[in-house]
Amino acid sequence: MMVSEKSVEKSFASLHAPFIMNAAEADVIRALRKKGVISRTGISSITGWSKAKTSQEIRSLIGKGYLVEEGEGTSQGGRRPGLLRINDQLGYLVGLDIGATSIDAVLADVGGKVLQRITSPADVRQSPEEFLSHCSELILEMVTAQACRHDQILGIGVGVPGPVDFSRGVLVAPPLMPGWENFPIRSFFQQTFPTSYVVIDNDVNIMAIGEQRAGDGIGVDHFIFIKIGTGIGSGIVSNGKIHRGSIGCAGDIGHICVDKQGPICRCGNTGCLEAMAAGPAVTEKALQAAKNGSSPLLRKMMEDNGGFLGPEDVNTACREGDQAALEIIRASGQMIGDVLASLVNFFNPSHIFIGGGITNFGNHLLVSIRRAVLRRSLPLATTDLSINFSRMGPEAGVTGAVALAREYLFIVEGQPTFKV
Amino acid sequence: MMVSEKSVEKSFASLHAPFIMNAAEADVIRALRKKGVISRTGISSITGWSKAKTSQEIRSLIGKGYLVEEGEGTSQGGRRPGLLRINDQLGYLVGLDIGATSIDAVLADVGGKVLQRITSPADVRQSPEEFLSHCSELILEMVTAQACRHDQILGIGVGVPGPVDFSRGVLVAPPLMPGWENFPIRSFFQQTFPTSYVVIDNDVNIMAIGEQRAGDGIGVDHFIFIKIGTGIGSGIVSNGKIHRGSIGCAGDIGHICVDKQGPICRCGNTGCLEAMAAGPAVTEKALQAAKNGSSPLLRKMMEDNGGFLGPEDVNTACREGDQAALEIIRASGQMIGDVLASLVNFFNPSHIFIGGGITNFGNHLLVSIRRAVLRRSLPLATTDLSINFSRMGPEAGVTGAVALAREYLFIVEGQPTFKV
Repeated sequence: MMVSEKSVEKSFASLHAPFIMNAAEADVIRALRKKGVISRTGISSITGWSKAKTSQEIRSLIGKGYLVEEGEGTSQGGRRPGLLRINDQLGYLVGLDIGATSIDAVLADVGGKVLQRITSPADVRQSPEEFLSHCSELILEMVTAQACRHDQILGIGVGVPGPVDFSRGVLVAPPLMPGWENFPIRSFFQQTFPTSYVVIDNDVNIMAIGEQRAGDGIGVDHFIFIKIGTGIGSGIVSNGKIHRGSIGCAGDIGHICVDKQGPICRCGNTGCLEAMAAGPAVTEKALQAAKNGSSPLLRKMMEDNGGFLGPEDVNTACREGDQAALEIIRASGQMIGDVLASLVNFFNPSHIFIGGGITNFGNHLLVSIRRAVLRRSLPLATTDLSINFSRMGPEAGVTGAVALAREYLFIVEGQPTFKV
Repeated sequence: MMVSEKSVEKSFASLHAPFIMNAAEADVIRALRKKGVISRTGISSITGWSKAKTSQEIRSLIGKGYLVEEGEGTSQGGRRPGLLRINDQLGYLVGLDIGATSIDAVLADVGGKVLQRITSPADVRQSPEEFLSHCSELILEMVTAQACRHDQILGIGVGVPGPVDFSRGVLVAPPLMPGWENFPIRSFFQQTFPTSYVVIDNDVNIMAIGEQRAGDGIGVDHFIFIKIGTGIGSGIVSNGKIHRGSIGCAGDIGHICVDKQGPICRCGNTGCLEAMAAGPAVTEKALQAAKNGSSPLLRKMMEDNGGFLGPEDVNTACREGDQAALEIIRASGQMIGDVLASLVNFFNPSHIFIGGGITNFGNHLLVSIRRAVLRRSLPLATTDLSINFSRMGPEAGVTGAVALAREYLFIVEGQPTFKV
């Protein structure tokens, strides 16, 4: 029995993600995800099934509303009948990239195509209830704008700025947002979006996933995505898969020691990379340069700003040729590069992508990082190593969040994830 | 058509590993590897195939000699007929662990059961032809002792002390054995063992694989195996898979900088971990302590040894309560622990296994490593972290080498490895 898209539409409210399927159904979905559209014969030849078995599995998947025949319902002609694709009208996916001071949200179809995007200021020091209610409102805003319904949201992928226990979907000992520890983000969203499956991951992990699915990380087996902003963190891809580590805190490189005699970090140790090279350290050094007279330009900027300097001021001063600002940026780059040099020896990635707010610092930062890595890594490990800013900018996070939601939309019985 | 083990035996000479199979055959082999023995019905229920299709695939695999019926050819009764297993008599596997000064070699059946083991002194400064000819002789010695034939060797797994381009099976820029660069180890062995597939990997990678298949690493998704001896290296397991990195030199942690003002390393950089904490550094410090009078015991040992001290002398002195020897060992442990602390933040393993010659140093070394890691890693990353000596000792390497050969014995069409 064929089911038209119209009758699938009607049954939406009863669809709950993730869709759990058997191994045979998964083979079909996998083939369709890879190829986009495919004929019955194509599916037969990939799976090795008989015509009868192929027809039966496809009938079942169409009955469930997961597949549609390409061209069905359209009368423009020209399309070859019998081609199948995943039903893009099955519902919608949401990607949320939660930062310390902002939220990026997108609404996408189940194919991952972004339909709408919202950015909103926010403050993670709010209670998780308040903060996440605001997130839900943003999602509902997009739902309304796209004229869809809240019970058509099938998956929500969320990136949060802290360590995540991925299997439980909760933050663990998050330094920026202590009140969020163990808060049940999944069930909070499911109150408003009861048909949706919710996946929580670390903010840099979703940037790495974004880079892998839609950026220069496509097809790259081993890379490190490093985010430099208020803090410093990284997302790791090993053998083509995100590496979250034993309890989900892999990539937390901001607290690697770069100087045992360095300043005390908020983590309690001394000389952590983050305390010496991230945004606040850059600002602090710039304020010193403004006050001790080594940079008249930074002093003027500070006075114009009412005694305040931000990382972007240091960048502006550097662009205008200020030597002190240049030295501050170079020093940050060198410390980051020294840490990366060790990680390059250990991990032997082919690519390092750099993202986050500080990437505006441009080439001076990048060159300092590269120099330090080349000086301290083994030549063999750097021969084919590329170190570059991510070209995805703020898109990396939300793109990865949607990709993550999409990855868990279809689940194979007895398997933790659906591998495409 | 059923094929008895006898007729399979006869056709041995024509069997070339790896055995390339289609996806359906692979499903059967995979099920058998997991379960050991299994009935036709069991295979049906795992694969979802009809009785007819199941019988057909099994018949084909028996015909090729890969499977046998359990109990076939025996008349002791008691065993339920119709149970299938992989034909252990299909041939043999070899594991070779090549060290700077020794070779460990084992002969195993295709199930991985070790039948014989040989250790021989050797010197990697020999030409690769001389050295590998010696390896071939060792293999032939085991072949003769087990009354089998050289053309029954189906797979040879080899661990070598240097960076390996895994896909090409050659050493790349190996510091210990420069003459081996790009030497075609695979085809060298295949001259003597033409039926065999040869897999080359780094020596610490095979130790990590050994720990994962037969040691405390069974079922552990994320761990680091660190080998401390003349050099320092590591093997990495991420998401249950060995992480070799982009060009195969992942885990090369011996040249991570621990002190920018430290001594010059053979790699040309200053203050590398290896130059400051591995065997030769320990010996060098012990000689200084012997000469400058800070350790009368080490002085006496040096004089008794004719001016020489080895790492094991430092260990002996430490056991006898010598304070200088204890401090030398503690300092090594702390430097290794400082590097591991960074890697724990980055990689978040649940286990660190320590192997290699220096593990004889025992608890003083281990405690120093643990202390340094606990002091400098993030608390979250160390909550469930176990740091211990590998209990496999010198078995880790050869066990991993056999496991590696076994992993590549059956290959699925179009897939780089056969995943069980």
